[in-house]
Amino acid sequence: MIHKTAIVNTKQLGSNVVVKEYAIVRDDVVLGDNVIIHPHVVIESGVRLGDNVEVFPGAYIGKEPKGAGATARTPIFNKKIVIGNNTSIGPNAVIYCDVTIGNNTLIGDGASIREQCSIGNYCIISRCVTVNYNATIGNKTKVMDLTHITGNCIIGDDVFISVGVNMANDNNVGPSATYSKDKIKGPEIKDDVVIGIGAILLPKILIGERAFVAAGAVVTKDVEPSTLVAGIPAKFVRNLDN
Amino acid sequence: MIHKTAIVNTKQLGSNVVVKEYAIVRDDVVLGDNVIIHPHVVIESGVRLGDNVEVFPGAYIGKEPKGAGATARTPIFNKKIVIGNNTSIGPNAVIYCDVTIGNNTLIGDGASIREQCSIGNYCIISRCVTVNYNATIGNKTKVMDLTHITGNCIIGDDVFISVGVNMANDNNVGPSATYSKDKIKGPEIKDDVVIGIGAILLPKILIGERAFVAAGAVVTKDVEPSTLVAGIPAKFVRNLDN
Amino acid sequence: MIHKTAIVNTKQLGSNVVVKEYAIVRDDVVLGDNVIIHPHVVIESGVRLGDNVEVFPGAYIGKEPKGAGATARTPIFNKKIVIGNNTSIGPNAVIYCDVTIGNNTLIGDGASIREQCSIGNYCIISRCVTVNYNATIGNKTKVMDLTHITGNCIIGDDVFISVGVNMANDNNVGPSATYSKDKIKGPEIKDDVVIGIGAILLPKILIGERAFVAAGAVVTKDVEPSTLVAGIPAKFVRNLDN
Repeated sequence: MIHKTAIVNTKQLGSNVVVKEYAIVRDDVVLGDNVIIHPHVVIESGVRLGDNVEVFPGAYIGKEPKGAGATARTPIFNKKIVIGNNTSIGPNAVIYCDVTIGNNTLIGDGASIREQCSIGNYCIISRCVTVNYNATIGNKTKVMDLTHITGNCIIGDDVFISVGVNMANDNNVGPSATYSKDKIKGPEIKDDVVIGIGAILLPKILIGERAFVAAGAVVTKDVEPSTLVAGIPAKFVRNLDN
Repeated sequence: MIHKTAIVNTKQLGSNVVVKEYAIVRDDVVLGDNVIIHPHVVIESGVRLGDNVEVFPGAYIGKEPKGAGATARTPIFNKKIVIGNNTSIGPNAVIYCDVTIGNNTLIGDGASIREQCSIGNYCIISRCVTVNYNATIGNKTKVMDLTHITGNCIIGDDVFISVGVNMANDNNVGPSATYSKDKIKGPEIKDDVVIGIGAILLPKILIGERAFVAAGAVVTKDVEPSTLVAGIPAKFVRNLDN
Repeated sequence: MIHKTAIVNTKQLGSNVVVKEYAIVRDDVVLGDNVIIHPHVVIESGVRLGDNVEVFPGAYIGKEPKGAGATARTPIFNKKIVIGNNTSIGPNAVIYCDVTIGNNTLIGDGASIREQCSIGNYCIISRCVTVNYNATIGNKTKVMDLTHITGNCIIGDDVFISVGVNMANDNNVGPSATYSKDKIKGPEIKDDVVIGIGAILLPKILIGERAFVAAGAVVTKDVEPSTLVAGIPAKFVRNLDN
């Protein structure tokens, strides 16, 4: 059912698609079966939504990255966004171009995911989470509210990242900094890791499998697998396998 | 005055109600006297707005919680939302089902309040604050920008929670965690408490009346009334009654 | 090109202006040449947009501050907003009355900028950043995601403020606090300063030119120019001129 005030310019609609009031769907968009598009959503060209996807009011899918003269880096992207079956996009969330999101994943209210990101199946990217460009997130990984995922980072499967976690991908900041692609690398977080509330992760660190970073820790160097680290800077507390 | 492009399906309108362009008000909604609904707002069925309530552009009131297969917990809710007189809902804020908000309260831009929450009178829930399910907040309590209020927590009257505060309700996280309702309990924050900027509160702690948690503290155990605590982990600094 | 569903009440339009579906532009608004207004944007009276400005879906420009009975301070503002050439306003961003933004600046998705703020040229105010009233930000300054800029603060040129930084302007909080304008003063951050991830800045501190505040530091007193400080509370680590 396409509401009479919805503006739908694609013909590639599955069965039982619902597009509600004042929503906009451009041409070259594919909507799978049973997709629900709530009011005031905008879906730009190049977006493919799987079956049973629900997009809540005010979400914007398909934003082109834009620098406005102030950014150090020229954005790279394809005009293609793929969102898997049963995935839900929260109200006022923003999904940029060149993003792939798997099946059964939940994108929270006001979350924003930049270009060239890949997010797996059964993930939660919760409310007001911002994900920077070219981040890769595995399956069954949860990123809680108000956390920032930096660009050029790799996060494994079954990872739990708590609320208010921050991370970076570049130590080369400040007035004399010049953008250098080779120097930009976020943390690498292996499978089954837990990052506690409000933790801070510095660039390029490797956090091994099953490691646990305590709440409020500032992680400045690599963390061994199956270890608990805590404090500022984060230090080894104990082994978790015993 | 209902703008001709507004879609209003309820008849339960007070006097002097204004519904602006492209706003949507479903059936079974009550709007009190002098309510102002700005453009692109969506109000779902079950919402009751008191007199003089103002809802700013892009706000979404009455969202049903949805799991998308990735959440550990099945949401519980009634399709009823009550918002008191003189309360203001900021642009792009999201209010879920089964939420009660008192009179003279301000909900900030982009804030998001999950199901089963109760918020008192004369409160401020500021910009980009996220409140998880089943949180209870008293009267005259202020929660500043970019703070996360966890689920199953109880916050008293006249509490001040500063910017960038984070808290949790569960130590049972990670790949082997199973959801257990009995283990989920956020902090309990008594009347007249102050929580400083960027503080972190762990699950189940009790913060006594008039206590003051310093900026950046990580609170790992109960805080006595009228005491100042600081540091990581937070330790007693001095008594505030003297 | 004004879409037939856009509601445009001003005649002050430059050449090649595009206003897309369901956007609203009130009277007494000036749109420069080549301005693009995306769907579901609301621009209130008093807004002046320079040439080549792009406003993304769901942004709201010209919000009047509103207290709802719960705020300590009566907002002061003029109904005038000036946004310079080539500046970009992200999806769901909110710009209050009495704000000036320079040329070539980028305002991120979901950012919110309160009344009486001034932001310079070639700045980035990134995603979900909240800026409080009467903040002054210089040129070429970058404020990364999920950071809060407090009210009554002054930030210089070429400053880099990382993700998840929080700051305050008032130590006089809590139930017995009375609002006193003279006591409210945020940090003053001089040119070329770097503030690391998740740092916390207390009221009234002065951070000298070229200083570097380490990730996770809690800054409780003034920082000398060209020094690195770190820790809780932040302490001198070394001089950066050597």
